Amino acid sequence: MSSTLAVDLMGGDHGPKVTLPACVQFLQEHPEGRVILVGQPEVVSPLLESHRLKDHPRVEFVPASEVVTSDDPVEIALRRKRDSSMRRAIELVRDGRAQACVSAGNTGALMALARYLLKTLLDIERPAIATYLPNQKGKGTLMLDLGANVDCEPLHLLQFAVMGTAYAATAGQAQPTVGLLNIGEEVIKGNDTIKRAAELLREADALGRLRFHGNVEGDDIFKGTTDIVVCDGFVGNVALKTSEGLAQMLSGMIREEFTRTPLSKLMALVALPVLKRFRRRVDHRRYNGAALLGLRGLVVKSHGSADAFGFEQALLRAHEAVQGDVVRHTERILEAMHESSPQGTESAPAS
Amino acid sequence: MSSTLAVDLMGGDHGPKVTLPACVQFLQEHPEGRVILVGQPEVVSPLLESHRLKDHPRVEFVPASEVVTSDDPVEIALRRKRDSSMRRAIELVRDGRAQACVSAGNTGALMALARYLLKTLLDIERPAIATYLPNQKGKGTLMLDLGANVDCEPLHLLQFAVMGTAYAATAGQAQPTVGLLNIGEEVIKGNDTIKRAAELLREADALGRLRFHGNVEGDDIFKGTTDIVVCDGFVGNVALKTSEGLAQMLSGMIREEFTRTPLSKLMALVALPVLKRFRRRVDHRRYNGAALLGLRGLVVKSHGSADAFGFEQALLRAHEAVQGDVVRHTERILEAMHESSPQGTESAPAS
Repeated sequence: MSSTLAVDLMGGDHGPKVTLPACVQFLQEHPEGRVILVGQPEVVSPLLESHRLKDHPRVEFVPASEVVTSDDPVEIALRRKRDSSMRRAIELVRDGRAQACVSAGNTGALMALARYLLKTLLDIERPAIATYLPNQKGKGTLMLDLGANVDCEPLHLLQFAVMGTAYAATAGQAQPTVGLLNIGEEVIKGNDTIKRAAELLREADALGRLRFHGNVEGDDIFKGTTDIVVCDGFVGNVALKTSEGLAQMLSGMIREEFTRTPLSKLMALVALPVLKRFRRRVDHRRYNGAALLGLRGLVVKSHGSADAFGFEQALLRAHEAVQGDVVRHTERILEAMHESSPQGTESAPAS
Repeated sequence: MSSTLAVDLMGGDHGPKVTLPACVQFLQEHPEGRVILVGQPEVVSPLLESHRLKDHPRVEFVPASEVVTSDDPVEIALRRKRDSSMRRAIELVRDGRAQACVSAGNTGALMALARYLLKTLLDIERPAIATYLPNQKGKGTLMLDLGANVDCEPLHLLQFAVMGTAYAATAGQAQPTVGLLNIGEEVIKGNDTIKRAAELLREADALGRLRFHGNVEGDDIFKGTTDIVVCDGFVGNVALKTSEGLAQMLSGMIREEFTRTPLSKLMALVALPVLKRFRRRVDHRRYNGAALLGLRGLVVKSHGSADAFGFEQALLRAHEAVQGDVVRHTERILEAMHESSPQGTESAPAS
């Protein structure tokens, strides 16, 4: 199945210098992939020439005169910069010209624009941000929400589980298990939101909508106890950032120890092949690409500082999700839930 | 300054087999330290003999007939097992016979008993659990709460900052900086609780009660951006467990890579001194010992699975905090805050 990705060339710390080479690589490796490149003509045109994309049969160019910067408030992106590359790229998805949009721009603006232009799916109150984290089993744990929703109701957590289930299926996990992030059994056992969310998840499991494993704790994310871990956006964002910080500290310390003395440098040289293989296994760039889920169209957010390899991974995520028809798949589960529940899932109290 | 620690010998996965040797080591290294050992006589007596602690001038033994197990619900620990080693050890602090209690037992039971027997300090509504995590600066970041309080009001977060400030001072950080854990600026900027907590912290800073740095994110914990990181117990527990899980996964992967082939095993042998030094730097046992803060007496909780080296670190934490007079120091800040605020800090809405 072919896919057409709308790519916001201007987003991220590096803009077209990174996003364009990533597209070239993607097109080479995926003959079924097409891209619509969106950006400022004066910046992008010379690069299109030099990368020989001008007359590429699977490349289209759509001009946009403005760029949403990383400090632009949501309001600017929504109301002022109406011809931004980010907005134009999402509009291509809305208009059915592309099946997914990929951007390395400002997360808040991207989420707001995506929500405004694409709208949410049936009964979905809040879209969520989902990403894969590496785990001991080598498959990756899908975690959501990572920061779109600070305070969540039980229904939202259930909906995240549904979105995650549909998304994970596009990455080859046909019947993924869902874990609800909670805290240690030793201490107070979670709060009311978590308890009620667990009930909703058990019901959905009994109806065959998803596979609920039960509560999990922070360490289960990296153990890979479940394929999906669901939590509110505050907790998810803290867990993600904490992990990034720890990984950085540890790799810094390994580097320090191996460069401390001439002898340890020699040891590093000897151990280099092993260290390299280790680094490749935990390379965070391989996990780049967070999906904005729950919308009537797919948007994938790349890390702002991603390099071409990292941005290409985000393109791949989008490509895979399009091939797995993630939006339609999510819709199907939501429709089934809506019908099986007497009042539909929208009956829950608004937050 | 001398210290007397009441030690619950029976707590944890290993009981006296681990806790007793740790006490022996502690006594040897700290001639100013005294311990009151609490445990079941039939189990402990032979070990006291074999470790030559029977007539040790700085050792006292207090019998207790019961043990709080790791699965005992809080109610059992509070109402049924009235002669447990955990309870007796805390009572020694309450009665002024010891200045701190150290236990590797069930966290929920320990917190409930400590709260019930010792009571909270002036204006403190919720005690908190605090521990040090390693950071890039090599000093350690004090983080609290780690799971005692699932839902926190802004006032609680302020109080955690006060408790943390007093506790960190006992570890040699005279004027520690406080960071309030929040999520990325890109996304929605925190919730109302965090915003109001930040206001309270700014006020306390202006009055010279503590040093408020501002908001921090998950990665700042390991960067060591601030000496103290304050958050609610749900978030803190998830961040802690997530870090533990990631550290385990990474060390497992390093081990795997270095034992994959005979050649990589040889490389590991060459690199061993460096790998050992690295492991020592990140050895989680060195950070064992979480303090229960906000009470009219100090209680230190050791990890249940700690070995003798780990348990000794928990004893050291308690010893240091006693020498720094942490309870009195916390009280002084609270009294100053109580007086400077027209209604005292207890004026905030109850949760």
